[in-house]
Amino acid sequence: MTMTRDEARARDAADPLRRFRDRFMLPDGVIYLDGNSLGALPRAAPPALDDLVRRQWGERLIRSWNEGWIEAPRRIGDKIARLIGARPGEVIAADSTSANLFKLLVAALRRDPARTTIVSELGNFHTDLHIAEGAVGCVPGARLKAVPRDALAGAIGDDTAVLLLTHVHYKTAARFDMATWSARAHDAGALMLWDLSHSTGAVAVDLGGAGADLAVGCGYKYLNGGPGAPAFLYVAERWQQVLANPVSGWMGHAAPFAFEDGYRPAPGIERWLSGTPAILGLAGLEAGVDLALEAEMAALEAKSAALFDVLAAAGDAIGLACVSPRDPAARGSHISFRHPDAYAICQALIEHGVIGDFRDPDIVRFGLTPLYLGFEDVVRAGEVLAGIVRGEIFRESRYAVRRAVT
Amino acid sequence: MTMTRDEARARDAADPLRRFRDRFMLPDGVIYLDGNSLGALPRAAPPALDDLVRRQWGERLIRSWNEGWIEAPRRIGDKIARLIGARPGEVIAADSTSANLFKLLVAALRRDPARTTIVSELGNFHTDLHIAEGAVGCVPGARLKAVPRDALAGAIGDDTAVLLLTHVHYKTAARFDMATWSARAHDAGALMLWDLSHSTGAVAVDLGGAGADLAVGCGYKYLNGGPGAPAFLYVAERWQQVLANPVSGWMGHAAPFAFEDGYRPAPGIERWLSGTPAILGLAGLEAGVDLALEAEMAALEAKSAALFDVLAAAGDAIGLACVSPRDPAARGSHISFRHPDAYAICQALIEHGVIGDFRDPDIVRFGLTPLYLGFEDVVRAGEVLAGIVRGEIFRESRYAVRRAVT
Repeated sequence: MTMTRDEARARDAADPLRRFRDRFMLPDGVIYLDGNSLGALPRAAPPALDDLVRRQWGERLIRSWNEGWIEAPRRIGDKIARLIGARPGEVIAADSTSANLFKLLVAALRRDPARTTIVSELGNFHTDLHIAEGAVGCVPGARLKAVPRDALAGAIGDDTAVLLLTHVHYKTAARFDMATWSARAHDAGALMLWDLSHSTGAVAVDLGGAGADLAVGCGYKYLNGGPGAPAFLYVAERWQQVLANPVSGWMGHAAPFAFEDGYRPAPGIERWLSGTPAILGLAGLEAGVDLALEAEMAALEAKSAALFDVLAAAGDAIGLACVSPRDPAARGSHISFRHPDAYAICQALIEHGVIGDFRDPDIVRFGLTPLYLGFEDVVRAGEVLAGIVRGEIFRESRYAVRRAVT
Repeated sequence: MTMTRDEARARDAADPLRRFRDRFMLPDGVIYLDGNSLGALPRAAPPALDDLVRRQWGERLIRSWNEGWIEAPRRIGDKIARLIGARPGEVIAADSTSANLFKLLVAALRRDPARTTIVSELGNFHTDLHIAEGAVGCVPGARLKAVPRDALAGAIGDDTAVLLLTHVHYKTAARFDMATWSARAHDAGALMLWDLSHSTGAVAVDLGGAGADLAVGCGYKYLNGGPGAPAFLYVAERWQQVLANPVSGWMGHAAPFAFEDGYRPAPGIERWLSGTPAILGLAGLEAGVDLALEAEMAALEAKSAALFDVLAAAGDAIGLACVSPRDPAARGSHISFRHPDAYAICQALIEHGVIGDFRDPDIVRFGLTPLYLGFEDVVRAGEVLAGIVRGEIFRESRYAVRRAVT
């Protein structure tokens, strides 16, 4: 049954997360269902960036490096650690997800010469597979074995160095059970590396509890860290003295300001740094992470599940094929529908103030950010979607939906 | 002869670059001689970042990717190209100097299996040597040969894959002749890779004219791009289809939004991208680069040379050992003095409003940024330096200068 606007307003009024909506700047006239691609702007970010730019950069200048900048990757990493079940000193904020993945994969492939293979999933977010190809090229004899999801368990073997999985699939939102798959990797003697890009800040993650070895994740989706925000990486404490960063830049040196010719890795998580930290990006990220830390993960998960149900029901009512799992424990915080005219539908949605995502070739994707989305937002989005798919508001659109869904 | 304040004021009044000073926000009571470590804040940067954060991120949200963000690395790269004698499509702004160097060194080592060696200079800025170590670890049989400057020419041979030199030395400011050394690399069949971190925006660079193959450089020094600003890399057009990026992330893919499992590098300079561009950092960088493009390089070089002479004379008058070349063509835009109490001197200088740099173990370094420094600034800095070294203002300082220079 589709939810009515009145019902939605009642749910919004009772929503324990409602107060977070005012902590974001959301544009009028837009229902933003793309927070899983670029999170909205936290109200705390502009003043934080103002202070960073005008005072810390403009007035304090180089002195700011000793007044908080140099610790930023570790400080923010320790905050992110609390969102993903990691301990202080196991996470650092730096570089991009792709770059961090490269570092960890090369390191994982070097651990044991007999273990030559990265196992991952075909159809994984493509940069993960591309980076795996690149990492394999840096370790003699290494290779990438990318297989369909149902062949993953059988692909893990004695030659597996590392199992690389994305916790929540970018397209379908299907979620791997972290403990189960980490155990499968460990049973074969392999390391487990999770990409948390569509998880962090959206669903409960317990890297420590699952026994995960390594992880990477994105700063600009559910962490609301800003466009191209620095990413993060996680290395379980037990691996920190064992694995080494191939992109061995000065910031990962044990004594970056001793200006030694030879590289000596820092003893802890700092060894995964490479170049100078991206201070502007880190300031945006920290504002988003601080906000995420205020919310209760259980409340986020419950609301995400409820928002999903609203949109799933709206899709059911018009016969749209939902490709996301119906079981909340088996998915992340977005919902995807398959339709041959997905691209045209997405364009028409945008034209009517609903911003979702097209994912090639036939997916309409909606990010359900429980921190700032309300039930009324999602009900209205469902109404617009229905109007477009049924052709009722088709005439108003410049974009043709070629085939109707009955 | 040391310059008087009156003489300095007259020079400032006649300075053709004087108008640029007002384009920067410089704090009162500080003489900033550390622009070669972190450039000052261009007045255009805060409004540009305001617009980026509040409007582009906050209001336009994900739509901004199609409204200028996705082109930013290439757009800014093309602007930087004009500062370093490169052509459009030969430069891209991305990642850190360290990360970019890693990508280019691995690619250079893979060009010809018979060429296994990176040749570089001992005492080069240490991240370059550290990254070279890391790159060598990614290519079987590769090695790093780091030798003193006077042994460099003899170290280049048939096995040299790439000669990696920093154009202007971070400590002494000694500048390599770019054409001469590029020719030496080419005569041996090797590639020439320049680190332009202490050059770009400060001294004339003509990569194309010198026949250079590859280059990297920093965004936060003389380009005034902000703390941890994205760096850049240069690949001469003739190598763009030959060399490949080992950190093969989605943004370097020929079709990043086709979501293909397999990696296909972009045909042009974009293949050197890896992860999502750091949009906040790029916005700061672009403000700085735009300003640098307004200045005439010949005027910058002439003023840099004149500022150097003022401080060199001030050092001579108190018997300080200048380790920077006296010939302007043989150096960059900073001046360094050696003194056993360099650290204490730097701390005392800061206490008296003069911000320079200590470089381990015994170097006092002053960056001479002709775009915003005046002659009076440098004369006053010289006065403070003399007072400290002579012990005249020693009593006011918490920092002891242990040994006097006569």
